[in-house]
Amino acid sequence: MYSIVELIGRKRDGKRLADDEIRFIIGEFSADRMPGYQMSALAMAVFFRGLDDRETAVWTEAMLRSGRVLDLASLGAGRVDKHSTGGVGDKISLPLAPAAAACGVIVPMCAGRGLGHTGGTIDKLEAIPGYDVALPVDRFSAVLREVGCSIIGQTEEIAPADKRLYALRDVTATVESIPLITASIMSKKLAEGIEGLVLDIKVGPGAFMKTLEDARELARRMVGVGTETGTKVVAFLTRMDEPLGRMVGNACEIEESIATLEGRGPADIVELTEVLGGAMVELARGVTFEQGRALIAASLKDGTALARWNRMVELHCGDLSRLPKPTGKTPVLATRSGYVTAIDGREVGLVGVALGAGRAKQSDRIDMAVGIRIDRKVSEFVNAGEPIATVFHGASGAPGKAHLERLSAAFIVSDTAPPHRPLILERIG
Amino acid sequence: MYSIVELIGRKRDGKRLADDEIRFIIGEFSADRMPGYQMSALAMAVFFRGLDDRETAVWTEAMLRSGRVLDLASLGAGRVDKHSTGGVGDKISLPLAPAAAACGVIVPMCAGRGLGHTGGTIDKLEAIPGYDVALPVDRFSAVLREVGCSIIGQTEEIAPADKRLYALRDVTATVESIPLITASIMSKKLAEGIEGLVLDIKVGPGAFMKTLEDARELARRMVGVGTETGTKVVAFLTRMDEPLGRMVGNACEIEESIATLEGRGPADIVELTEVLGGAMVELARGVTFEQGRALIAASLKDGTALARWNRMVELHCGDLSRLPKPTGKTPVLATRSGYVTAIDGREVGLVGVALGAGRAKQSDRIDMAVGIRIDRKVSEFVNAGEPIATVFHGASGAPGKAHLERLSAAFIVSDTAPPHRPLILERIG
Repeated sequence: MYSIVELIGRKRDGKRLADDEIRFIIGEFSADRMPGYQMSALAMAVFFRGLDDRETAVWTEAMLRSGRVLDLASLGAGRVDKHSTGGVGDKISLPLAPAAAACGVIVPMCAGRGLGHTGGTIDKLEAIPGYDVALPVDRFSAVLREVGCSIIGQTEEIAPADKRLYALRDVTATVESIPLITASIMSKKLAEGIEGLVLDIKVGPGAFMKTLEDARELARRMVGVGTETGTKVVAFLTRMDEPLGRMVGNACEIEESIATLEGRGPADIVELTEVLGGAMVELARGVTFEQGRALIAASLKDGTALARWNRMVELHCGDLSRLPKPTGKTPVLATRSGYVTAIDGREVGLVGVALGAGRAKQSDRIDMAVGIRIDRKVSEFVNAGEPIATVFHGASGAPGKAHLERLSAAFIVSDTAPPHRPLILERIG
Repeated sequence: MYSIVELIGRKRDGKRLADDEIRFIIGEFSADRMPGYQMSALAMAVFFRGLDDRETAVWTEAMLRSGRVLDLASLGAGRVDKHSTGGVGDKISLPLAPAAAACGVIVPMCAGRGLGHTGGTIDKLEAIPGYDVALPVDRFSAVLREVGCSIIGQTEEIAPADKRLYALRDVTATVESIPLITASIMSKKLAEGIEGLVLDIKVGPGAFMKTLEDARELARRMVGVGTETGTKVVAFLTRMDEPLGRMVGNACEIEESIATLEGRGPADIVELTEVLGGAMVELARGVTFEQGRALIAASLKDGTALARWNRMVELHCGDLSRLPKPTGKTPVLATRSGYVTAIDGREVGLVGVALGAGRAKQSDRIDMAVGIRIDRKVSEFVNAGEPIATVFHGASGAPGKAHLERLSAAFIVSDTAPPHRPLILERIG
């Protein structure tokens, strides 16, 4: 119908592609009739030339249609999900989904696994013995109907074209294209049959978006695709210059999430849960953001969010009483006194991976008990010789000296306290 | 040793690649350890970011070393070849190689086949019954030693990395990268073991280089790679707004080449042969260009070039007495009187292909007798009803009406004669 090489050439020369041309490309790629070498050349041309909002939306929908799209309309209105671009210690989905559900939002969340320095929500849930991340659609619907939230893994059926394209981009230096990032995230999220989406776009040297401008552009494109596809999208740009919360690992992040649901979570986790949840309630129920935020805050204190969490885990066959425990712990002692001014989350994450808490490659096995506790967060004071962090041991025992030194070096300690910086930088949409 | 995806990312971000990095890339690609999807993404990044002279030279040499490099030093000094970016009716190599040989140049020419609207020197030579285009190296050397020129086809052994890369670029819209074009041409030509190279870079709407700026850039890059690799390179930019000479086809282009060697060639063929040959003699023998040109002109008149040609064909087992003849001919009559102001060579070439004189796809068979004669060239006057072109029939007989009309439409006829435009536009290097 169209010549793929001509379409690549058109994009290369800065022209826009028509709706049918984009649908043809994604269709051919999905059906294995467009080889990887053509798609990677096109992805590189898109890196340089971009896609406009309309092109991005059509690209998104074509990838979405390459797989199964959930029809959850029978659950009623108010289906809103959250997506984060990912950060070390980011377990927000775990307290957020039940808190939003407690406030009347329906949260059909398909989450991912971790690779490299960041963990994945699905890996964390699998730290709970028995938790089934692969419920069939009818059981997923049933959990949503009863509890209001359910978190499952992305199946092979969801946007398979995106899965293949992402794997190709990953090895061809074409990940860093904002329209392609937008289409990748939106195609997977729209497959959940949602009406609204709240985005948490991390900004910082260790984040996927390094600069405020890139983060704004991504947010703007997400909102743009939302408009084109009839989905309400709100994006928050949030600061990332340290791990979120105090726990980095799997079982220990489940514990920190439960603490948050019990009203005693770390300040940054609580703030982000309230803000993202507030916007979800706003989109789902038509209240103001402030009203939504107050509802979420209340649900974290009155036990209603915790009850939703416990029921969700139960219906997924998870047994929280058997959460893996560390076999021991090793403190990392501060080498000088002063204020923590920054913590390199990427380094903390990579040490965690090296100790078994994550995956360096897809086939690695995770030791759920391994974790790192941040004993001093940014702006806190530490005395020389006090623990600045603590490593939780897994099956392989205590960490080696090199790992402890690397962890120590991830903390910057100074004589003066850093200026206060807000966690939430901007709202777009 | 290096991470290919990191190297692609570096080029994508506008950084230069080190010598060893380029050698690694070409080595991995040649050894089938770098998949096509990575190379096509890199080629697209090179399209946008370019390669500097040093990178282009290292890329060229790495592709050159992927295959066999002829060592013809035992033939003595003065080994110079010519390369043209290709045009319809361009049979210059056929009179040029023997003319240069007659003037003391050693011309070890490995030529290509035609695809699409332009013909190929090797296809034209195969119109001569018996002509062996695949001499083994020892016989190629022996012909060069006795005659001074030999024209053979590019073998699989010559720069196989280029062959694979070109096939990939062709289907990924990455052909139009001047440094990659430079590396492709130079790697094949340097494999001939030459000391000098004369380039004919066509400029015009139907040519590979559409604008004078692009043609200049290609010429400059070729000369730059020559400098980096110790090869003397001279480039001529030549005008292409009509087919070269009056014949387009295979057997008929052999006849026109012989006419040129007999001192009765069309003016444009003679001029281009003299100019390109003059530069070849200049590079090979250290005389001035004017002296070289005069020597070539003399060789076309005194029978010495023709004698070299006849001996070369004989040693390649070709039998000129059995050149295929057309089965008939059909004139294309001018529909109005006036001066020819332009002839669309691409259209003439494509009609030729449709009639059997060339290949639309690699596997097509050529009818050597089929051809098109240009009865009126640019700036010549034609009366309505007189032949403006003539089709020579092959095995399938007379052409259909649609082909004749398309051929007729390729000629622009006006009331006023076009201004005189020189054939040779510029010399670079």
